[in-house]
Amino acid sequence: MNQSSLYCCGQGAKHNGFVVQGSNGEFPFLTSSERLEVVSRVRQALPRDKLLLAGSGCESTQATVEMTVSMAQVGADAAMVVTPCYYHGRMNSAALIHHYTKVADLSPIPVVLYSVPANTGLDLPVDAAVTLSQHPNIVGIKDSGGDVTRIGLIVHKTRRQDFQVLAGSAGFLLASYAVGAVGGVCALANVLGAQVCQLERLCLTGQWEDAQKLQHRLIEPNTAVTQRFGIPGLKKTMDWFGYYGGPCRAPLRELSAPQEEALRLDFTSNGWL
Amino acid sequence: MNQSSLYCCGQGAKHNGFVVQGSNGEFPFLTSSERLEVVSRVRQALPRDKLLLAGSGCESTQATVEMTVSMAQVGADAAMVVTPCYYHGRMNSAALIHHYTKVADLSPIPVVLYSVPANTGLDLPVDAAVTLSQHPNIVGIKDSGGDVTRIGLIVHKTRRQDFQVLAGSAGFLLASYAVGAVGGVCALANVLGAQVCQLERLCLTGQWEDAQKLQHRLIEPNTAVTQRFGIPGLKKTMDWFGYYGGPCRAPLRELSAPQEEALRLDFTSNGWL
Amino acid sequence: MNQSSLYCCGQGAKHNGFVVQGSNGEFPFLTSSERLEVVSRVRQALPRDKLLLAGSGCESTQATVEMTVSMAQVGADAAMVVTPCYYHGRMNSAALIHHYTKVADLSPIPVVLYSVPANTGLDLPVDAAVTLSQHPNIVGIKDSGGDVTRIGLIVHKTRRQDFQVLAGSAGFLLASYAVGAVGGVCALANVLGAQVCQLERLCLTGQWEDAQKLQHRLIEPNTAVTQRFGIPGLKKTMDWFGYYGGPCRAPLRELSAPQEEALRLDFTSNGWL
Amino acid sequence: MNQSSLYCCGQGAKHNGFVVQGSNGEFPFLTSSERLEVVSRVRQALPRDKLLLAGSGCESTQATVEMTVSMAQVGADAAMVVTPCYYHGRMNSAALIHHYTKVADLSPIPVVLYSVPANTGLDLPVDAAVTLSQHPNIVGIKDSGGDVTRIGLIVHKTRRQDFQVLAGSAGFLLASYAVGAVGGVCALANVLGAQVCQLERLCLTGQWEDAQKLQHRLIEPNTAVTQRFGIPGLKKTMDWFGYYGGPCRAPLRELSAPQEEALRLDFTSNGWL
Repeated sequence: MNQSSLYCCGQGAKHNGFVVQGSNGEFPFLTSSERLEVVSRVRQALPRDKLLLAGSGCESTQATVEMTVSMAQVGADAAMVVTPCYYHGRMNSAALIHHYTKVADLSPIPVVLYSVPANTGLDLPVDAAVTLSQHPNIVGIKDSGGDVTRIGLIVHKTRRQDFQVLAGSAGFLLASYAVGAVGGVCALANVLGAQVCQLERLCLTGQWEDAQKLQHRLIEPNTAVTQRFGIPGLKKTMDWFGYYGGPCRAPLRELSAPQEEALRLDFTSNGWL
Repeated sequence: MNQSSLYCCGQGAKHNGFVVQGSNGEFPFLTSSERLEVVSRVRQALPRDKLLLAGSGCESTQATVEMTVSMAQVGADAAMVVTPCYYHGRMNSAALIHHYTKVADLSPIPVVLYSVPANTGLDLPVDAAVTLSQHPNIVGIKDSGGDVTRIGLIVHKTRRQDFQVLAGSAGFLLASYAVGAVGGVCALANVLGAQVCQLERLCLTGQWEDAQKLQHRLIEPNTAVTQRFGIPGLKKTMDWFGYYGGPCRAPLRELSAPQEEALRLDFTSNGWL
Repeated sequence: MNQSSLYCCGQGAKHNGFVVQGSNGEFPFLTSSERLEVVSRVRQALPRDKLLLAGSGCESTQATVEMTVSMAQVGADAAMVVTPCYYHGRMNSAALIHHYTKVADLSPIPVVLYSVPANTGLDLPVDAAVTLSQHPNIVGIKDSGGDVTRIGLIVHKTRRQDFQVLAGSAGFLLASYAVGAVGGVCALANVLGAQVCQLERLCLTGQWEDAQKLQHRLIEPNTAVTQRFGIPGLKKTMDWFGYYGGPCRAPLRELSAPQEEALRLDFTSNGWL
Repeated sequence: MNQSSLYCCGQGAKHNGFVVQGSNGEFPFLTSSERLEVVSRVRQALPRDKLLLAGSGCESTQATVEMTVSMAQVGADAAMVVTPCYYHGRMNSAALIHHYTKVADLSPIPVVLYSVPANTGLDLPVDAAVTLSQHPNIVGIKDSGGDVTRIGLIVHKTRRQDFQVLAGSAGFLLASYAVGAVGGVCALANVLGAQVCQLERLCLTGQWEDAQKLQHRLIEPNTAVTQRFGIPGLKKTMDWFGYYGGPCRAPLRELSAPQEEALRLDFTSNGWL
């Protein structure tokens, strides 16, 4: 079951850890106890030197605090906290700064901000990210919006805080490294994990030409398993690559046959299948 | 606490019932047991002849079914089910038809569809509403999007199914009646309940000129307690009108002094305060 | 050639006049002299008691002034001035108030504001409309956005100025009358002119039930010739109804066969073909 | 008068040429003869070895062809053709491919596609760009949307056609080079021309760390003179830097004093003023 994503973070030849219960982990469909159980099981299966980031965001501040504390108890090394979204029209900087400060104050583990406008309808404002980067228990941001100008600006304005900016999708991973991101959390790594890690390594060692070639071949597959075909696409592809994707929970639906064909083409035309 | 909204539905001089746990009831911030308890308490306080619609929507189909069944057990007369939204990019007609059909099949009480794009980023597609209107346990839709062309079209295409179309906000209540809606579920009725009921009565009795005058005076107050100042605005106004609004749950924030002033002006300039 | 739209304005049994060079008149594709010639020819063909509103909007204030003066010279009774749009990000209330004031100051004929966000990406702000309604040479607004709450608010706040609010599309014509609009400028009237006039008459004489039935049957045809199939759809339909639609100018393309079929279905299923 | 932008294109230490009559050249506010005169004058002032790209886009295909031919006659080396936009709802791939093919067929000079969704509400679809890249007289694209995933994909899919992808704004210039763009057309170069050229050189010579530092310092100034304060901001800044920005044409308005202050801060805080 794809309850996790690869987490690359700037050090080396292999992925540094895993995100469990990000958007592709179908967290909104799980009960609180299921969310915790998934993290607990991954913790048991994972070598101790691999980081485990657990998605612990909820709509209310109080529920997020409780979930974050529980995630720490079941073994998460850090918490990735998505912006609340149902009332996104009122989630201005002041509201989000208050929310994350409260969570970070009470969390026993470091907090990573998580901005994913395609799901939440909301970009965590840059000024809020900058303010929050000064909190001792907030260590970074996963930015999935794909606006590399914004990513560069966040790097620029948080430089003094030892704050980690992570690309939230493989489609703009190279570009994010180029403007100063230090890692990525990429759904695509569920199926092309080695390739995403290789792309990171090429960026970190300054082999930009090879990196560019590899990046190009990852764009369409990445779009296919994210915005084009979403979780059903990612799960189907995991099956193709010899992993276990498994069924989606309703209301998500399986892909139709023509959709599967289009999905496959995005991988074959780039030489991955 | 504003956990409810007025529910007018086409019959008479006073509101027919209440919606508990709609968007203004802060349902995403409550635990499952809190959601049920609020409904249970309202049921106990409410005369038996008043309908109680309970918001029972969750992100997954399974959780929505369970919550709907539980809402019936604590006394809800019908369930108002918001569209799932976190994966709104994949919530096409097929997914939503499957979701609502499952919920309606298993619900012991009638189901009302609930489309509120300002919160969910998603309009329940007209063709899905039309298909679902044929389900024997789906009795209506609350449409909060404010697109009266769409509301008219849903009325037009569901006419043979005895399907109730309800305006989801007081700003377009008269216009919705004019195109065939039979009621409204209006946040504004938490503070101007008598006036919203009067507007309904004027529409139902064909007193369109008086209705128009009243409708005009309700637009700015309605916008103020919904999109402009949201739940904090609604709660503050409830206090002004002698009800108990109470504090918001975080991450929602109280209004600033200048915001309160602007909120008040929207009521005073229309003669309500 | 559909260079005009029906203009109904609150008085009687038939349309009061025509709009020439609105959005469906393909005005952005015509040269300045073509724009003037079309208006001049329509003026010659039109009985003197029919009003001729000429679209005279351009991107710059200066060009709009010049075009408006020229439109008056070739016989327009009033000018309909669309909001400038290429720099819509900077077209705030101050900029638009300045623009329209300048145009109205220098125009020999009355000016009608024209807000059409589907084309321009821009809603003329309500506060700007209210301010401009006080100008002695600005007599109304054509609002094509379809937000009936907004239309009602504009009526409410411009009541003292004898300012005419016109529905910009037939899909929300009844609802607009219900909230106080006094007329409509409707692309659909190019093909169902008598029906649009009848709808107006039913609204003005308070026959709301019959109006509602007629309105319902006009929604899908209206959507078909506007947002769904646009100008090519409108022109094709004109041919079906015995008028001359003619070819579109490039880059607009003719409809494909399946599109034509879908367009036809929107008319047949509502009993118009 | 800022009727031009720097055009960097992959070869060397200084800018290769100028774009005249791009979005910041206020082209929609100029008459046809003014547009031609500006290009003619720039041509006379410009050394022969500097390329002159002239913006020649109009709404209709026919007008665009005529303007492009005229631009060639007054000395433009290439034409930059913005997507038509008033009917953007109908500007699908088929329409745009037809439009650009016609223009390129009839143009005596090479054509550069120009996609600027902030103004036009329209992204030139990737598949249209790929198809058009095969036309012998279409030599590149200026992409101002800032979506670096898309820019990378266009580079990837047009590689065999010797097609030049140009970043349309300085905020994502480094990232665009990183994914394979070969130049930039940047409004910011009107005021920080040397710095934009230096950034290009650092990218081309693989000095990515220095490039990153410089890029970071250009993001806020770039945003300030484009989306934040637009043409009035760019013109004001040109005055500060010793150039002549001059007044805007109406309906664009000058900046207020607080806006000027905020604009200045975006330059001072990054060490440019």
